[in-house]
Amino acid sequence: MKSISASSIKTWERFYRANFINSLTGFKSVNLIGTINSAGKTNLGVFSSIVHIGSDPALVGYINRPTKASPHTISNIQASGVYTINHIHPSFLEKAHQTSAKYADEMSEFDEVGLTPEFIEPMKAPFVKESRVKYALSLKEIIPIQLNDTFLVIGEIQHVKLEDDILLADGFLSLDKASSLCSNGTDGYYSTQLINRYHYAKPGVHPKKIN
Amino acid sequence: MKSISASSIKTWERFYRANFINSLTGFKSVNLIGTINSAGKTNLGVFSSIVHIGSDPALVGYINRPTKASPHTISNIQASGVYTINHIHPSFLEKAHQTSAKYADEMSEFDEVGLTPEFIEPMKAPFVKESRVKYALSLKEIIPIQLNDTFLVIGEIQHVKLEDDILLADGFLSLDKASSLCSNGTDGYYSTQLINRYHYAKPGVHPKKIN
Repeated sequence: MKSISASSIKTWERFYRANFINSLTGFKSVNLIGTINSAGKTNLGVFSSIVHIGSDPALVGYINRPTKASPHTISNIQASGVYTINHIHPSFLEKAHQTSAKYADEMSEFDEVGLTPEFIEPMKAPFVKESRVKYALSLKEIIPIQLNDTFLVIGEIQHVKLEDDILLADGFLSLDKASSLCSNGTDGYYSTQLINRYHYAKPGVHPKKIN
Repeated sequence: MKSISASSIKTWERFYRANFINSLTGFKSVNLIGTINSAGKTNLGVFSSIVHIGSDPALVGYINRPTKASPHTISNIQASGVYTINHIHPSFLEKAHQTSAKYADEMSEFDEVGLTPEFIEPMKAPFVKESRVKYALSLKEIIPIQLNDTFLVIGEIQHVKLEDDILLADGFLSLDKASSLCSNGTDGYYSTQLINRYHYAKPGVHPKKIN
């Protein structure tokens, strides 16, 4: 096996290092975040830093890069207090990736890449009509991470829309049936295959599969 | 499609809601975090809330649940300042899941589930010998999330150990070749299959695959 120290990582070329560090943290939930600005212009961006924070209340976080690099999504969320998170599927993967291009503020990524905004009253932020698993959040807190000028943006789930047949009897969602994708690094997209679900583990008891 | 409001989610039975909300946020990086306490006893726990925070400096976060529910990992990290994150593979998936059982403080999950601690000088925290992709971090900051008494624990990558043949020429790691797993919900584990990598997106240019 290869051993690599922090001091050699620091000497690497920037994009090589970004590919490596972004892969090292493992597969990621990749989603489109939909927002709207105060002039009513919609915005859509691909984010792979979604993190579950809690189930009751239902809190979801994502990391927003420094505002110089990634200004639109966070400023729209601050202004409107609401945003949507939409799973990505193979049928619109290339369109989803294309939202990461640097479009000007007055352009909507929905129009530019060819995805359809969907509005569910009374929520102002646009959903992605093509997505089979999506939810709206109200902003609860933006926590600055001073170590590298990023932000942990935390929202509470307000509304969920999903395909009927992926919701199992115990609340679990069959995301592989929904063809929701995950990502690796800054640019790799993956489908998944269920290995097993296991019952809640107890000391001294061998793990039992959930059928 | 099914529409679900926040007010109905609040009325759900606790485990149903946990399954649902944990699935809704999508596929997750699932890893074993290795720590050591001041008496030299090792600890190992499965965590699915790893989040990439930045590449330079190389910062990685994870969400630690309230200390009442999940006390050992975070207190060991606070005491020693160092911890490891280890990818999970099918060959030891059941052992990895079993670390989520509530073992007493004086027991080591390494011994209880049958995984092998591996020490790389001068780092005090144990790696998982069986893991093909793993890294050590030094604690940088613990940010309390007051909304639900959880914590964002942020570390800087200090050392990486991985299989030679998964590192590509541009720094990307072929995590599917390494058989690194991802998870969904609180108890579902998945293998992955690469669909495509795409070049950095530019406005007006159709996404190009990386071969």
